[in-house]
Amino acid sequence: MHKLTQEILEQTITKRANATHKGDYGRILIIGGTEQYGGAVIMNALAAVNSGSGLVTVATHPSNFTALHSHLPEAMVTDYTQDLTAFITKADVVLIGSGLGEQLAILTATLNSVRSDQILILDGSALTLLAEHQLDLPDARIVLTPHEMEWQRLSQIEIAEQTPAKNLAALATFKPSPILVLKKYQTEIYTADQVFQLTIGGPYQATGGMGDTLAGMIAGFSGQFRTSLEQAVLAAVYAHSAIADDLARERYVVLPTQISAEIPKLMHDYANKKLTNL
Amino acid sequence: MHKLTQEILEQTITKRANATHKGDYGRILIIGGTEQYGGAVIMNALAAVNSGSGLVTVATHPSNFTALHSHLPEAMVTDYTQDLTAFITKADVVLIGSGLGEQLAILTATLNSVRSDQILILDGSALTLLAEHQLDLPDARIVLTPHEMEWQRLSQIEIAEQTPAKNLAALATFKPSPILVLKKYQTEIYTADQVFQLTIGGPYQATGGMGDTLAGMIAGFSGQFRTSLEQAVLAAVYAHSAIADDLARERYVVLPTQISAEIPKLMHDYANKKLTNL
Amino acid sequence: MHKLTQEILEQTITKRANATHKGDYGRILIIGGTEQYGGAVIMNALAAVNSGSGLVTVATHPSNFTALHSHLPEAMVTDYTQDLTAFITKADVVLIGSGLGEQLAILTATLNSVRSDQILILDGSALTLLAEHQLDLPDARIVLTPHEMEWQRLSQIEIAEQTPAKNLAALATFKPSPILVLKKYQTEIYTADQVFQLTIGGPYQATGGMGDTLAGMIAGFSGQFRTSLEQAVLAAVYAHSAIADDLARERYVVLPTQISAEIPKLMHDYANKKLTNL
Amino acid sequence: MHKLTQEILEQTITKRANATHKGDYGRILIIGGTEQYGGAVIMNALAAVNSGSGLVTVATHPSNFTALHSHLPEAMVTDYTQDLTAFITKADVVLIGSGLGEQLAILTATLNSVRSDQILILDGSALTLLAEHQLDLPDARIVLTPHEMEWQRLSQIEIAEQTPAKNLAALATFKPSPILVLKKYQTEIYTADQVFQLTIGGPYQATGGMGDTLAGMIAGFSGQFRTSLEQAVLAAVYAHSAIADDLARERYVVLPTQISAEIPKLMHDYANKKLTNL
Repeated sequence: MHKLTQEILEQTITKRANATHKGDYGRILIIGGTEQYGGAVIMNALAAVNSGSGLVTVATHPSNFTALHSHLPEAMVTDYTQDLTAFITKADVVLIGSGLGEQLAILTATLNSVRSDQILILDGSALTLLAEHQLDLPDARIVLTPHEMEWQRLSQIEIAEQTPAKNLAALATFKPSPILVLKKYQTEIYTADQVFQLTIGGPYQATGGMGDTLAGMIAGFSGQFRTSLEQAVLAAVYAHSAIADDLARERYVVLPTQISAEIPKLMHDYANKKLTNL
Repeated sequence: MHKLTQEILEQTITKRANATHKGDYGRILIIGGTEQYGGAVIMNALAAVNSGSGLVTVATHPSNFTALHSHLPEAMVTDYTQDLTAFITKADVVLIGSGLGEQLAILTATLNSVRSDQILILDGSALTLLAEHQLDLPDARIVLTPHEMEWQRLSQIEIAEQTPAKNLAALATFKPSPILVLKKYQTEIYTADQVFQLTIGGPYQATGGMGDTLAGMIAGFSGQFRTSLEQAVLAAVYAHSAIADDLARERYVVLPTQISAEIPKLMHDYANKKLTNL
Repeated sequence: MHKLTQEILEQTITKRANATHKGDYGRILIIGGTEQYGGAVIMNALAAVNSGSGLVTVATHPSNFTALHSHLPEAMVTDYTQDLTAFITKADVVLIGSGLGEQLAILTATLNSVRSDQILILDGSALTLLAEHQLDLPDARIVLTPHEMEWQRLSQIEIAEQTPAKNLAALATFKPSPILVLKKYQTEIYTADQVFQLTIGGPYQATGGMGDTLAGMIAGFSGQFRTSLEQAVLAAVYAHSAIADDLARERYVVLPTQISAEIPKLMHDYANKKLTNL
Repeated sequence: MHKLTQEILEQTITKRANATHKGDYGRILIIGGTEQYGGAVIMNALAAVNSGSGLVTVATHPSNFTALHSHLPEAMVTDYTQDLTAFITKADVVLIGSGLGEQLAILTATLNSVRSDQILILDGSALTLLAEHQLDLPDARIVLTPHEMEWQRLSQIEIAEQTPAKNLAALATFKPSPILVLKKYQTEIYTADQVFQLTIGGPYQATGGMGDTLAGMIAGFSGQFRTSLEQAVLAAVYAHSAIADDLARERYVVLPTQISAEIPKLMHDYANKKLTNL
């Protein structure tokens, strides 16, 4: 098991080339947020935009449009009950599942529409729906971001039995082979043949929405740092907790939205290798 | 009468253990907020989330969903006119009454649904409804947070007559025995056999919503520091005014939302015993 | 003509007594804000709450509730097309007119409901409606806050002719005798027999909503500093521009909402006579 | 091709005269923002108000009113599907097109209503609609703000062929002669006979909404600095990227709303020639 260090940030977060435009930094489509769980997609989007995504569209319940725009006029919105094919077609990255609740039809329509060159991140309710309805994964570049209970539902491995060996074996049964971000104390990231472990972060992150912010960062990083999806995911996971650790120097609990606000500064510091403060 | 000191914070606010998750820090259900008084539950929720609650759900009038999410995407929402049984079942702490107005049916349904192992905090309109309709308290771990007039309605003791002895006697008639937070100049907290007095705080707190923030902090602390409900309540009351005192060093009036924003820093300082600044 | 100095702040803004509560600091009712002009009452309310008002209720078009609560959960709301009598009865101060548009019926109902012991502040559209419909002022403690064009409509004095002598003469025809805040370059404040002039402030304040913030401050100060309505109005006018001057040290334009955010600090400094920075 | 320097800010941003009022600083009408793209007009308006506009009205889809007021109570709103003639008549500057989507009727009605003395800024979707429907420009003082693809649609010049000479030639076919702000790496600004180039700014600006903020700044500057429309446009373009450069000293990506928040400080510094920090 490889322990992640700040090297992953130094390798991944590079200075942007001058003659580039927003299309170079990822078109992200976020799908989720029932009327009850609208905050989840707001946190997804805050994380993606602050990670440097070029264009972010949020497909959600219309009752969430105003709160999203109150936080983030930078994002576009659309009603998730309408046909999303045109939006999916234009996206580099699709993140579905945060606060999606029981919206099975939206999930299946999305699974049916993504292309093999697209990155598809499955989070939260999407993972529970996948497990409950035994849905197949589409041919795409897939990232799964379950916590331990969601992984139990997906893999049939009880939490107490979730060892790296068993997790790798279970992951091998998924086609196509996804990247697995198993959220827990010392989060583990699985690729087809490697396991990485996060050794930073802490219990000040134990608050609702923390995973929604992480999913948004994974979307933002993977749409932007395109040489390696694995590397982008690892960097997002590490950056998320590195910011939390920094904020926790003076806070007992760290709110997900506070993490998003700090992303541009952390990325700047790593792109410029000014690491003294982190 | 015991005077509260910062010792209560030192005793109560402890460092979090590493391998913990949001379920360890309290599932809070906040019920309140008519169309007119929606701000009350927003202030409840800001206080609870900033106090470190793991998961906060707000059951309120749907017209309040957007403003709540504009402040706090970290919270989940649900319509308080729908059946709340499933939400109550999952909660560690139920706070009902801030801005609840005349919603008697919601109060009685809640009183009928709580379990004996749950903490039930009754605030604001819930206290007036209790008194007006002579409702029985359910078998639960109860905290009452009246101001003097609400306590008069509940106890039949005129404000001028509200002495510790009379208040204790009145409290003894409630079954099960609640903790009473009697909000006033030098707030008093009553358990079955003890009286504690707050000697900090000041008139810069004399603004609408201050009590809603306190109720949210009591919910947050009691869902999180579970060894003693009494201690959690005392710590929340003390912390609320300690922050106000600190903010009042440069403000003539302290807004409730400003107090919530400072909770994570105060808790950090006490968990780490860095008290120089408070 | 008396030139206002910071002495008016030193005289007016006093330390609060300890055993006081929110009822001692003014119950303010703000009436205004059509669907188009909802921002006006948001700015009223931000100014009133930050000035230290005990309780603020905003009667406005329901489409404005959410944006108001996004700024200020501390305020309560109600639909201004409903009967406001009960709200008016409980108020110490009624501010009507900011963004009120053509809502004549709401204005006349309010004029018919206020009592002689209440403070009634007439701003913006209320002043235009007063002039257009030649409405009588009710028996109350009245403050008028017109800009020069609104004063022309009310007094029939062309702007170029608005001299102190003529203004005083025109004011004498109003029954009961109001306080007039004539907003202009070097704003003038008229009582029955005196004229005060503001010599601070500047063109960085020339932005929409500045007057709504001033009206909210007048409401906040007059509900709180009750020994003299005249003194409270003068202090609010002076404080509003003193804050603007301070912010303009590093801003080309000062937004109304930025002024409100600074009120608690200015009031603290004057209550404590720490004037070095202003 | 003239390279823009900070001299354009020194020349354009002058100290305001004392006896002035909000009418002197521009009445701006912003038209745009479908239900999906409401964030665009929020960013327009934040930029215009922070640039010092006297009065800003936003004509948009009513679903955007609340989010706009959550950001900016200083702006007024109206439904863009209603007749806007009265609003257009009162405006000094009309900005149309950011997030306007397919609202052709609103665009044509606006083109038919503007007067020759008014400034008309055409942005985003308005430019695409102009090209698709081969609409004539009205007799007004026109500014076009296309990115390269929008300019291709308007001029029929492929992006790779967009040289200054060809752009000038194409621009000469527009009647009346507009100012062209061609947004790209090193943005170019074309008047009838001159070309200016921006050499500041960077890829940290490659995020959605950046152009909406620029359009709002152009509206704000041109409504306020009236001696030369050309100079106002040049100064707005330069200021927009000067702020981005400053923010990018510690941020990997700069959000459009962050730029708007800094406008008053940059303008203050140039009006006072305190340029040390920029």
